[in-house]
Formats: sequence, structure tokens, C-alpha cells
Amino acid sequence: MPARPPWIAVVGPGEATPAELETAEEVGAAVAEAGAILVCGGLGGVMEAACRGARSKLGVTFGLLPGTRREDANGWVQYALPTGLGEGRNLLVVRAADAVVAIGGAWGTLSEIALALRAGTPVVGLDTWELRRGGAPVAGIVEAAGPGEAVADALARAATTGS
Amino acid sequence: MPARPPWIAVVGPGEATPAELETAEEVGAAVAEAGAILVCGGLGGVMEAACRGARSKLGVTFGLLPGTRREDANGWVQYALPTGLGEGRNLLVVRAADAVVAIGGAWGTLSEIALALRAGTPVVGLDTWELRRGGAPVAGIVEAAGPGEAVADALARAATTGS
Amino acid sequence: MPARPPWIAVVGPGEATPAELETAEEVGAAVAEAGAILVCGGLGGVMEAACRGARSKLGVTFGLLPGTRREDANGWVQYALPTGLGEGRNLLVVRAADAVVAIGGAWGTLSEIALALRAGTPVVGLDTWELRRGGAPVAGIVEAAGPGEAVADALARAATTGS
Amino acid sequence: MPARPPWIAVVGPGEATPAELETAEEVGAAVAEAGAILVCGGLGGVMEAACRGARSKLGVTFGLLPGTRREDANGWVQYALPTGLGEGRNLLVVRAADAVVAIGGAWGTLSEIALALRAGTPVVGLDTWELRRGGAPVAGIVEAAGPGEAVADALARAATTGS
Repeated sequence: MPARPPWIAVVGPGEATPAELETAEEVGAAVAEAGAILVCGGLGGVMEAACRGARSKLGVTFGLLPGTRREDANGWVQYALPTGLGEGRNLLVVRAADAVVAIGGAWGTLSEIALALRAGTPVVGLDTWELRRGGAPVAGIVEAAGPGEAVADALARAATTGS
Repeated sequence: MPARPPWIAVVGPGEATPAELETAEEVGAAVAEAGAILVCGGLGGVMEAACRGARSKLGVTFGLLPGTRREDANGWVQYALPTGLGEGRNLLVVRAADAVVAIGGAWGTLSEIALALRAGTPVVGLDTWELRRGGAPVAGIVEAAGPGEAVADALARAATTGS
Repeated sequence: MPARPPWIAVVGPGEATPAELETAEEVGAAVAEAGAILVCGGLGGVMEAACRGARSKLGVTFGLLPGTRREDANGWVQYALPTGLGEGRNLLVVRAADAVVAIGGAWGTLSEIALALRAGTPVVGLDTWELRRGGAPVAGIVEAAGPGEAVADALARAATTGS
Repeated sequence: MPARPPWIAVVGPGEATPAELETAEEVGAAVAEAGAILVCGGLGGVMEAACRGARSKLGVTFGLLPGTRREDANGWVQYALPTGLGEGRNLLVVRAADAVVAIGGAWGTLSEIALALRAGTPVVGLDTWELRRGGAPVAGIVEAAGPGEAVADALARAATTGS
């Protein structure tokens, strides 16, 4: 029986900097080149750039939308699911993922990071939140040096996390 | 720009009669032959038979699972999303659909019929619930003569409902 | 240890007939007189009339709102929770209930009836849906003769259903 | 028309340190003394201590439970709603709140902080997460000196945030 492909969530701000967009596009391309499925929140910014990168390599892209209109998805989302749950869709993005790549530092992104780590799903970060308590760093987000390393790391951790 | 394919939800009991399973498999095959995407609850019975039918025609199949384990999906689900929302995933199946084909008469199926009609999404039925008030039938579910007619009718109504 | 009060959901259309409103108000009053907690969808029509009836007897009323604004609740809701889940709040109303009283015949009401029966939660109906398959009635909704009987029946069935 | 009471969410770990429990109990008491409603996730640790504190001052306490069994609530929850949404109930806790008091540093707590700040709901923290990006602190969580100050601050910010 062939192994099913892993699912990688790419999470990040809907309004992103040029550097974040470039990073997201490279992450999306690397996800597709690895044969993994990309899942995201389906809207603009990092989500759109990641989907564009994945589609440039003929990858499969999913968008789990906060609203009820499928056409709100960015044009690079191959399969768009309107959830109507608002930010509740963040939890669905995380539950769909075998590992998460987080880019940049929006509040929604932080919620997805936290929900993933709560569930034991690995999170690899690129220029994202730094989490501390009592002045000391807290282990959780694995920082990566670049897009390719982030995806490789996410896939390696997904593979060892089991189902 | 090419039109996106329509999404057809196939809903029905997880424990189904042989006749319901046969119907579901034919519905799934017809969905795939029409180039539509099949979405369902991802488990057994009608859901599994519909996915098997769709995959037999190389169709695309989605399963939105009630639990948090992707491996709970039946083997014919191509893309399984663990939602962890329990019966709350019924609403997501409906929101993902441009039209619904309902087979048989489980309570979960009735909830999906009601949520779809509440949202204005067309519902075509095959040997499913009959809804009455004050002794008189209530319009809503469109009864079809067979699997092929049901899918053709669902697609026609999806096409005219807009987004 | 004192027993906790039972929770009774009152479900019905947001746009209701005068007869349905009168019924709902009497149901709400009976729920409060029995010392039970009333939970509903928090908006107008049957929901508002039921809350008004309950508050007229100093009962406790909950409204689980589809949107994110607490002030959308009707004025007789004592505790309003904005869920932001749209029709997904219907499932929460049902999950909060030990028994359901259904009034009238809206689609949303039917979804709540179906979700309750799916979960094994008793449903008592007043001039509501009649459910049939293959031309024969399907057991599930218990029809009551009037508001007082409906609440008494709901409470009796809630008491014997366990947690 | 009397103003409705504000809702304060108290969020923190289910397995808490003695210091966190003491803090939570004092926060709960202060919420109740201010006439506010306390909402939480309904389970143990910080949630239980906060409810106990609130009930010691005759306050109103809500627990939004992850599972479907009302009896999973801690004994100081006055009104328990079983949501069946798992960690999805975190979002409901946040949506129910006019302001959030966060205690300690669990992942679930961080998700609630992030969802609140995403929604524009004020968050006051007591020995909780420190959020940074690029080595610099990010504004968002308001640190308080103690339980009383935290609740006073949360109420002041809730009052000025509008609906």
C-alpha cells in the first residue's frame, strides 16, 4: 500500500511584507517538490504566496476559508472549503496538518502555532514569534535557516510524529 | 478562465442496507463521470460506497472526518480532513457543497438535509426522508428516480444556484 | 449534593406565527416554573417568546448566538454567548440540552431536531415536523398536546436519559 | 435600562502550580466582587481555582467544556456547556469575553491569548507568555502586578472596548 502524502500547513499573515511573501512562495514550492499537500487559510498574503509557489511545482493546495463563499479563496487554491467558522478555521488548518511552517508574526499565526503545539503537531518557524516565559525562551517552535530547510525539517518531524 | 468543478456532497448512513450501498456507489461514479468533486463525511456505509464509486471513475473524493485521526477515513477517500468537531463536521460537509445528494434515512443525514436547505443549497434525495407538516408534504428535498438522475439533477440545480 | 437543574432547549423559527409565539411563551414559562434552565439560539421569534415566558417566571435564559455580537440577543436572554459559528451554533444548543422542545417548522429547527435525535437527546414537538420514510411515520419526535405537557414530557425524558 | 455585566475570561493551564492556583482563585474572587461574569474552559487547575474564587464571592461562573459531558465540569462551574469541539472551545471562551485574564503559560492559554488579540479583545497577563519578534517585545498582553490589578485593568479595558 502506498504511503499517503504528508500535509504541511503554511500559516502567516494575510497582509505580509515582500520578504515574507518571497519566503512563503519558496516554502510552497518546496512543499510541492517534496510531494506533500499544502493546506492554508486560503486567503491573501502568505497564504496566497505559498499556494502560488506550490502550484508552480504542480502541487496540491487546500484553502480552509473563514467565510461561506468559495470564491473568496485566492486564485492558487485548488480545493477551497468555505467553513463559515471565522477564526475557528485556524483550528481546522492545524488539525489537517502533519506539520506546520509558520512565517511572520500575525496574531492569527500565533493562534495556529499554539494550537499545533498544544496538539503535539511540530511547528517550524521562519522569522516568526519568539516565545518566552520568565525571561527565558520556551521550546516549541523550531527555527529554520530558510524556506528549503524549513520544509525539510517539517517533513522530517511529520514523519516521526506518527499519525 | 476555466470554470471550477462543482462540489457534490453525498450524505447517508454509516450503516447502510445493500440497496443503499449500491445506490451510493452509482451516485459516486456519476459524480466523478460528470467531472464534479465528491465530498462526504469520510467514514463507512454510504460514504465509503460513494467514494469507491467515484474513485472507480478516477474522481476526486474528500472526507471531512468527525474525529482527529486521518486514518479513520475509508480507503477511497483521497483527501481526508480530520475536523475534531464530531457531528459539527456535518455542517462543514454542507458548506463545502454546491448541491447535496441524500441517500437513506439516518438522523445525521436529516441534519445535513436541513442545514443545506437552511442555507439554500439544493438537496436531491434517493429513498430518503419525507418531510411533512400538518399532514401535508413540505417542498425541499427533490426526489430522484435513480442515481444517474439524482446526480444530473443536483448538478443542474448547483449550476443555477450561483456561488 | 443538590441535583443540578436540567437544561431544556426551545427551538423554533425566528419568524414565527402568532400561535407559535404564544406557544413558545407558554413553554418558556413552564420551563422556568419547573426550575429548569432554558437555552435557545438567542434571536427573535420563538426564541424571544420562549425567553420572555421564562423570564416572566424568573427563570434562567441562555442564548447561543450565531454571530459575534452579544447585543444581537433578544432582550429576554439573561446570558448571551456570541459563538461566531453561524448555524454551527445549532449544534451547541443541542449539546447544551438535556431535552429539546421543538415548535413549528423552520429548516434550522429541523437541523436541531435531527442533531438531538442523532445524539440520543429526547425531542418533544408542538406543531412541528412530521418525519416519514417509505410512506410510514418514523419514531423520534414525541408530539405533545400543549405547552405544559410538552415541558413535563421533556423533563421526564431528560430525567431518565442520564447525563 | 441597566447595563449588562461584563464577561471576563480567565484562561490558564489545567495542570497548574500552587502559585498559579492561588493567583487564579484571587482573580476569580475579584471578578465576582466587581459584579462581572466569569467564563472559562470549565476543567481543572487555573479554571477550577478561578471558579472557586468567584463562587466564594457569590459570582456567576461559566464553563465551556471541550467534551460532550456536562459532568466533566469542575464543581465550581455554575453553568456548564458541553461543546464537543475539543480545543475549538477555546475560541468560544474568547468570543464570550469582553476581556481576558491569562495566568501561566500553557499552549492552550497561548492560543486563547492570540485569538483574543486577533479579535481586538484586551488581554491582561499574570506571569504568562512574553511575546517577542526579532528580539524585541511585541505589544499585546498587558502585564499586571497582581490579581486585583489584573481584574481592575481587564474591566477598565473591557469598558472602553465597546461591544
